[in-house]
Amino acid sequence: MILDIIDKKRVGKELSYKELDYLFNGYLNGDVCDYQMSSFLMAVCINGMTDEEVFALTKIFIDSGDSLDFSSIPGIKVDKHSTGGIGDKTTFVVAPIVASLGIPVIKMSGRGLGYTGGTIDKLESIKGYKVDLSEKEIMKQVKDINFVLTGQSHDLVPMDKVIYALRDVTATVKSIPLIASSIMSKKIASGADKILIDIKVGNGAFLSNKEEAKKLGDLMVRIGNIYGREVRYVISDMNTPLGYSVGNGLEVIEALDVLKGKETSNNFVNLCIDLSSEMVSMGLNISKDEARKLVVKSIEDKTAYNKFLELVSYQGGDINNISISNKKCIIKSNKNGEITKINALEIGKLALELGAGKKNIKDKIDYGVGVRLNKLIGEKVKKGDTLATLYVNNKVPNIDIDKIFTIC
Amino acid sequence: MILDIIDKKRVGKELSYKELDYLFNGYLNGDVCDYQMSSFLMAVCINGMTDEEVFALTKIFIDSGDSLDFSSIPGIKVDKHSTGGIGDKTTFVVAPIVASLGIPVIKMSGRGLGYTGGTIDKLESIKGYKVDLSEKEIMKQVKDINFVLTGQSHDLVPMDKVIYALRDVTATVKSIPLIASSIMSKKIASGADKILIDIKVGNGAFLSNKEEAKKLGDLMVRIGNIYGREVRYVISDMNTPLGYSVGNGLEVIEALDVLKGKETSNNFVNLCIDLSSEMVSMGLNISKDEARKLVVKSIEDKTAYNKFLELVSYQGGDINNISISNKKCIIKSNKNGEITKINALEIGKLALELGAGKKNIKDKIDYGVGVRLNKLIGEKVKKGDTLATLYVNNKVPNIDIDKIFTIC
Repeated sequence: MILDIIDKKRVGKELSYKELDYLFNGYLNGDVCDYQMSSFLMAVCINGMTDEEVFALTKIFIDSGDSLDFSSIPGIKVDKHSTGGIGDKTTFVVAPIVASLGIPVIKMSGRGLGYTGGTIDKLESIKGYKVDLSEKEIMKQVKDINFVLTGQSHDLVPMDKVIYALRDVTATVKSIPLIASSIMSKKIASGADKILIDIKVGNGAFLSNKEEAKKLGDLMVRIGNIYGREVRYVISDMNTPLGYSVGNGLEVIEALDVLKGKETSNNFVNLCIDLSSEMVSMGLNISKDEARKLVVKSIEDKTAYNKFLELVSYQGGDINNISISNKKCIIKSNKNGEITKINALEIGKLALELGAGKKNIKDKIDYGVGVRLNKLIGEKVKKGDTLATLYVNNKVPNIDIDKIFTIC
Repeated sequence: MILDIIDKKRVGKELSYKELDYLFNGYLNGDVCDYQMSSFLMAVCINGMTDEEVFALTKIFIDSGDSLDFSSIPGIKVDKHSTGGIGDKTTFVVAPIVASLGIPVIKMSGRGLGYTGGTIDKLESIKGYKVDLSEKEIMKQVKDINFVLTGQSHDLVPMDKVIYALRDVTATVKSIPLIASSIMSKKIASGADKILIDIKVGNGAFLSNKEEAKKLGDLMVRIGNIYGREVRYVISDMNTPLGYSVGNGLEVIEALDVLKGKETSNNFVNLCIDLSSEMVSMGLNISKDEARKLVVKSIEDKTAYNKFLELVSYQGGDINNISISNKKCIIKSNKNGEITKINALEIGKLALELGAGKKNIKDKIDYGVGVRLNKLIGEKVKKGDTLATLYVNNKVPNIDIDKIFTIC
């Protein structure tokens, strides 16, 4: 039976709900071995899945755990998900903007096994910030301040956890049907009314071209339809890191700079405004242009900034005490010219080397380390100018400047 | 590195010798996990391999163990391999024919985890027959009688054993590059000068169509060329079982009947004559037509039969003491008509149920049980006629006659 199911996908046939259920729940209860599931996942990576199969798999994922219900909270709850990139701290700008405009934001995020920590790890760089709120605490906080950023209080989609862990070590991550069902099952189980997906494309992301990103986005829209959830998506560049900083504490500080109005136009700020406008448009049922005006105003008049301070304070954090390493190291330009490329993947690897992320599941993240660019793409530099500042702890890796920066 | 290699095959790129070596030897020494190898094998099943990759893999397989050298024995050593089918006892007819015509036959065979035992299991149904000859004994026996049928004395291609065991439980058996490198590595390591492959096609075989069989055969010819070994192949039907008997002792007895001249034309006899003619043509460097005349004569004048008796006696077996169960059970026709189909796969499953093969690695084969057909395809039967005789031990499974026999 197990082999028949794997074989069917090997030859590219469509599987029924029953067959997928047998296989995936069999894996969860131990009847299907790791090496059988990985063989199946590779067949899916190559031969794909029909929409019906993806819908079935998403349901099987959702049914493997709890689902949250925030229908008692008035207003349209809009959630956002990013497929992940280098220096992606958009949540810390977008979520307070949206919350400050009266849309309830209940965002439950995960930790990262990437080049830096996940949203929760980044929040923990703020001293005292509590990330393990109970359901009761979450409900009270939403009613009080309309805004929660916390870790997952429930066992949402446990099947995704075990399948993702296997995909991660078997080169079966890059599959549109598997990515779509993984993301959408978690978003649907966490109870949002509407969902915005930020799909990254580039060398620092899962997907390397826009056609694939569009396929993934359209598929997630169709999954959302099945569950009555409006889904929109934005395709954004991940060949270049977002903004100036990559690292946990450094990224929170950069987000605060944007909310304070210190930075008004770079690739990070522009993406934050775009995503916020999309979410506000969904949450208030207004046009994106109207939404954009509200978003810009909420930055200019500091309501978004104050909302973030309110959140940090409510969850016990000290905004004046964010982990940043004192030990710095400067990368200087070895020539004159214009920066035409900053390699996202290489910056990510560098941050990981410094200790900003986990190489192995047992590693501890160092919140204070990371990379802060002193120059962005398009800027002119002279030999000897500082290109980037590394915030280091004990070890400084060897750096190949030309791999990171292209200066012409 | 491991993930990069798997990923390369996922997207259909060609791997280098170095990459394949790293992966497969890594698997053998434990650096590559089961679930990683199975994910890779599935990618190969779907995306295939180039000739260069197959040549590299075959070399890696061969290098994983010993290789035999029979160059000190005069004459062209011709080996035969069958991809496996129901009732395939051709070795017991073909090998003595070839040996009786002066071509040295040193055949080292394996045991089976199929519907019946392998060649070695079948030989063990002859009381006293010794299957574990040492290299020294093999060399002496070839010099004395020009003919050896034994188990493998050496650790030939240990990598194939572990990879095949994994393929068997991950639905990754059906891959032309993997089948070709598995078979050819073993044949080349066992030292034959020329190799004949009998590729089975039908519901009782790996391959279901002739185009695939031709692809497999042509690929094995090209692998042989690399090693300076002439390879020929024959594509033969495996929708119908070969001859009358399926079971270990029963198959040896049927082979003896053919060598005695009792059976002169059915699908089994015809295949034996065809394969023998091919091998004699290769061994004596004569045309297949000339070879066929010698083959037919060796049956008619009993030299092949006597060669087989000589072999059995030399290896300590008692030809008058072959395991056959005394307990029989008859399958009768439930209608009048002509037999238009005898389902090989169903007969195989039935023999397995009776105990002729191993369902699990720990099962013990019962040499005496099996199925003997009383009628072959094309024969007319009346209701109540005996279609088949089951040689049973303790258990008699439920039988659905209409699944096995099609009578119109």
